[in-house]
Amino acid sequence: MQLLFHYNWLVREEWYSWCEDLTEEELLKNRTGGVGSILQTLFHIVDVEWSWIRLILGKEDFQENFDDYKSISKVRELDARFHKEVEEFVNNWDKNLESNKFYDLQSDGSHSIDTWGEVMRHVIAHEIHHIGQLSIWAREIGKKPVSANFIGRGLGTH
Amino acid sequence: MQLLFHYNWLVREEWYSWCEDLTEEELLKNRTGGVGSILQTLFHIVDVEWSWIRLILGKEDFQENFDDYKSISKVRELDARFHKEVEEFVNNWDKNLESNKFYDLQSDGSHSIDTWGEVMRHVIAHEIHHIGQLSIWAREIGKKPVSANFIGRGLGTH
Repeated sequence: MQLLFHYNWLVREEWYSWCEDLTEEELLKNRTGGVGSILQTLFHIVDVEWSWIRLILGKEDFQENFDDYKSISKVRELDARFHKEVEEFVNNWDKNLESNKFYDLQSDGSHSIDTWGEVMRHVIAHEIHHIGQLSIWAREIGKKPVSANFIGRGLGTH
Repeated sequence: MQLLFHYNWLVREEWYSWCEDLTEEELLKNRTGGVGSILQTLFHIVDVEWSWIRLILGKEDFQENFDDYKSISKVRELDARFHKEVEEFVNNWDKNLESNKFYDLQSDGSHSIDTWGEVMRHVIAHEIHHIGQLSIWAREIGKKPVSANFIGRGLGTH
C-alpha cells in the first residue's frame, strides 16, 4: 500500500519539474476531459489526497480554491504544506487499519460506509488516473510525458 | 495488492461495455498519446498484464499482434483466455513472494533486477494510467467515461 503512495509522490515530483518548461498559459489552458487544465489536475490530486486522509481521521477538511493556486510554485507549496501529515499517516499505515469504517455523508443526507483500506486504494487510483490524463495532454502539446513506470524507481522491498 | 487488480478488472469490464456503443471507426481511430486508439489501449492492458505474470513465472510470453484483435469481441476473447491464469496468480499472491527476484533482460544485453512486488505494482499502475488516457478520449468523443472510483465497488474487506 505505502509503496504505491511513494510511487505517486515520485511521479508527481517529476510532473512538477516537467511543468517548469511550460508557459502559464499552457498550464492553465482549459483542456478536454479530467478537471480541465494541467495545473488544476495537480492541484486536485494534492487536495484530494489530503482531504481523504483528513476525513477518515475525523479532522476538518477545508475546500481549497484553485483561484488561489494558479502557479506551479503555489501548488508545490500547498503540496509541501499537506505532505507532512499525509506522509506520516501513510508511513504509519498498518493492515489493522484496513477494515476501520468511514461513514461518508452523501449529498442526499444518507451515509455510505467505506473501509479505510478502500479509501487508501481510492486515493492511490485517483492520482494514477489523473496522471494518465496529463500524459495525453502532454502529447497534445508535443511534449514527452513523465514515465508512468513503477519499476526502475527503487521501490522494491529487497 | 489483490484488491487493486480486482478494481482494474471491474473497471475494464465497464470499459468493454462502454465500447459497445462506439463504431469500429471510433474504436480504432488513431488518437494523440498513449498507444494510439481506444481498442489498442484495452488490448495493450490485457497483453501487458498477462505477459508480466508469464515473465516472472519464467513461462514463455508470445507477442500478440493487434492486427488480429481489431474488434471489441476479439479483445474480450483474448482477455478471457488470459484471465484464468492471471486471476489464479493474483488470488494466490502472498506477501512472501514480494521480494522474489525477476532478472529483466534489457535491450543492451544487461539485466535489471525487479522484485515480484515491483512487477505487480507496475502492472496495477500500468492499467490505471492507460484507463486515465481513455477517459480523455471519451470526452473528446463527447461521451461520459467510466467512473474511476475505487470506493463504491464493494472492494472493502469487512
